[in-house]
Amino acid sequence: MSGQSELRSERIYLDHNATTPLSVRVQQSIQKNIENWGNPSSIHIDSRGPKTILRETRKLFAEIFQCSPLELIFNSGASEGNNTVLKSVWSKYQMEKNEYIISAIEHPSVVKSAQYLETLGAVIHWIPVDKKGRLDLSFVQHKISNKTALISCMFANNETGTLLPIRELSQIAQQHQVLFHVDCVQALGKEVLSLADLKIDYATFSAHKFYALKGCGVLFVRKGSPYTNLIHGGGQERGRRGGTENILSIASLLAALQGYSELAEKKKNMTVLRDQMESEILKTIPLAEVTAGLSPRLANTSSLVIPGVDGETLLMSLDLKGFSVSTGAACSSGNPEPSPVLLAIGLSRQEAQNSLRVSLGWGTTAEEIQTFVQTLAEVVQRIREANNFFIPNSSSENKVV
Amino acid sequence: MSGQSELRSERIYLDHNATTPLSVRVQQSIQKNIENWGNPSSIHIDSRGPKTILRETRKLFAEIFQCSPLELIFNSGASEGNNTVLKSVWSKYQMEKNEYIISAIEHPSVVKSAQYLETLGAVIHWIPVDKKGRLDLSFVQHKISNKTALISCMFANNETGTLLPIRELSQIAQQHQVLFHVDCVQALGKEVLSLADLKIDYATFSAHKFYALKGCGVLFVRKGSPYTNLIHGGGQERGRRGGTENILSIASLLAALQGYSELAEKKKNMTVLRDQMESEILKTIPLAEVTAGLSPRLANTSSLVIPGVDGETLLMSLDLKGFSVSTGAACSSGNPEPSPVLLAIGLSRQEAQNSLRVSLGWGTTAEEIQTFVQTLAEVVQRIREANNFFIPNSSSENKVV
Repeated sequence: MSGQSELRSERIYLDHNATTPLSVRVQQSIQKNIENWGNPSSIHIDSRGPKTILRETRKLFAEIFQCSPLELIFNSGASEGNNTVLKSVWSKYQMEKNEYIISAIEHPSVVKSAQYLETLGAVIHWIPVDKKGRLDLSFVQHKISNKTALISCMFANNETGTLLPIRELSQIAQQHQVLFHVDCVQALGKEVLSLADLKIDYATFSAHKFYALKGCGVLFVRKGSPYTNLIHGGGQERGRRGGTENILSIASLLAALQGYSELAEKKKNMTVLRDQMESEILKTIPLAEVTAGLSPRLANTSSLVIPGVDGETLLMSLDLKGFSVSTGAACSSGNPEPSPVLLAIGLSRQEAQNSLRVSLGWGTTAEEIQTFVQTLAEVVQRIREANNFFIPNSSSENKVV
Repeated sequence: MSGQSELRSERIYLDHNATTPLSVRVQQSIQKNIENWGNPSSIHIDSRGPKTILRETRKLFAEIFQCSPLELIFNSGASEGNNTVLKSVWSKYQMEKNEYIISAIEHPSVVKSAQYLETLGAVIHWIPVDKKGRLDLSFVQHKISNKTALISCMFANNETGTLLPIRELSQIAQQHQVLFHVDCVQALGKEVLSLADLKIDYATFSAHKFYALKGCGVLFVRKGSPYTNLIHGGGQERGRRGGTENILSIASLLAALQGYSELAEKKKNMTVLRDQMESEILKTIPLAEVTAGLSPRLANTSSLVIPGVDGETLLMSLDLKGFSVSTGAACSSGNPEPSPVLLAIGLSRQEAQNSLRVSLGWGTTAEEIQTFVQTLAEVVQRIREANNFFIPNSSSENKVV
């Protein structure tokens, strides 16, 4: 990014849960598909390239995630997907079955959709999740009834990386014949996923968290599960989503999926680097804690609490030194409230203010992590000194919670 | 497009109302903005480029179309925009004001949204439009009441190119304090538009009909007009549309808008070429007619009826000869029903089956038009001969209706 002479010439990006850089495959795909600007709904030759992209992407996605290509709907992203699911289910049952059981740590597109349904008469039961990322399954068992329309839970949390008990929720949903939705956004490219394994009715995905372009999502709707268009219109997606398809973004997803076989190796690398990073941070930064560090987590995510350091100040200091990270201290939209997710799992407001999220990517290297940890330790020390933050003698007792 | 040796090496694209090629400016913008993959909601430096793109595009769009930048919402396209408008208005008034007055020749995203509202209890009054593209304003005057929630009408029709009486409808809407929505998709890049001129509450736009990428639309919502999110979620677009913004597509719209000052000249060129083309066609193809040829129309659009020639056969023959055009004989989704628009304005099923749409673009040349007309005349003659189609002596009486 030009004109930023105060910055490192090569930045180190450790915010892959927010969005990912474009992979080389994706960049090549963009160059190649600039010529595929035709409308896939046309019946002349200019539609052929775009139609092929749609078909190939749908086919490969279905192969990888083990579903039928007909169960996949391309849309503008996971926010659209999540809205479509909640509003589809409401459209089907309305007041007849108006109760929804939803984890307390969902993405805003699920939370705000649910709150919208509340204004129409829905009752939302928010499933408690603790600091270790453990979801209260007994709460689900207690709340589920013949009034329940849907259980909705993410595969993995975007802030802490904790994996949610999808298998157990799927079983409960199946026992009670309740629809089940899984927001898979953070799992794509980090965890092996199969839609055949479990009874999932709806699953949402986003291309831009998977090294592809923005503006493309995939919504899985199991054959037979209720569905109402969020966007009515032309015959696209077999009449299930109106609007000319975003071919360039869909082609970029195809390119990203073509590298999917590298996932196992990438995951191993990310796990090793993330664990090394955490171990170094706990060694060098007194009082630092890793939230849900001992719980099943995504390979790439580290959610830290660093007492005595305001997350936003820390983020901005690191930014000036050339590192991109995230914090639960400031909402993405500039909202001064700390992260609802961190508060929901039981962190105090102070802890949320002291939080830092580091999320690695497929391209993160050991050198980058080493440089980052060194800089982090220096910056934390400087901020703490400026704040006259007192470190007690027991400072070596860093914790992985 | 490779591997199509039977095709002309240089195709002639005359289907700009379906989608447009990417302008040189847009192609350059893609190259430049591949590096702007950051999430604009982040608070580190990688968000700066994307944030700038959002701000600049919103600002330039507002300047050109004379509204406030705050009245513009970026979304995935005009189908989403049209759905948002109709469902927002329903959300506001529901059964209290459940009547909608909508032109009979709207885009499927308006028609299908309206039909969806019907299932919820809305009453839709479809405004008749005749063969000359004249909308029945007395029908509007007759139907409008204190039960009317919205008048919705496109600026120009996508199939015939006719301009609808937006000024008159705006006045009626204002007199009765009824909300007014204009689908401006086909006007962008063809007609001079101002949102300050008229009392319009909602206007929808699409980037991919304007030489930019797919996956980006703009929804204008006048300050104070009712609005409910179609997509709930994060704080993007001041909380009015959740989902990470499609930066590459928005940047491509910015690039396209930067060429907006060329519109008057481009429009003049397209008008001259289109008129020459029609005049040549009427001279050389017996019995051919131009639908609404004498009515106020978009500069680039020509809707023809060529008796004795099936539109789909004609389209495919032209396709093989290297020309991309469209027909009202086959719906974009492969539906065998002829175009609802052509039937609505009073063409017979046979006339709709014999229809051909030719839509010129900013880059169309006189040579292309000449080659096209020659080929069209030859192909029509060949198809007619194969069909033993009889041309009466009065064949020279081609009409511009």
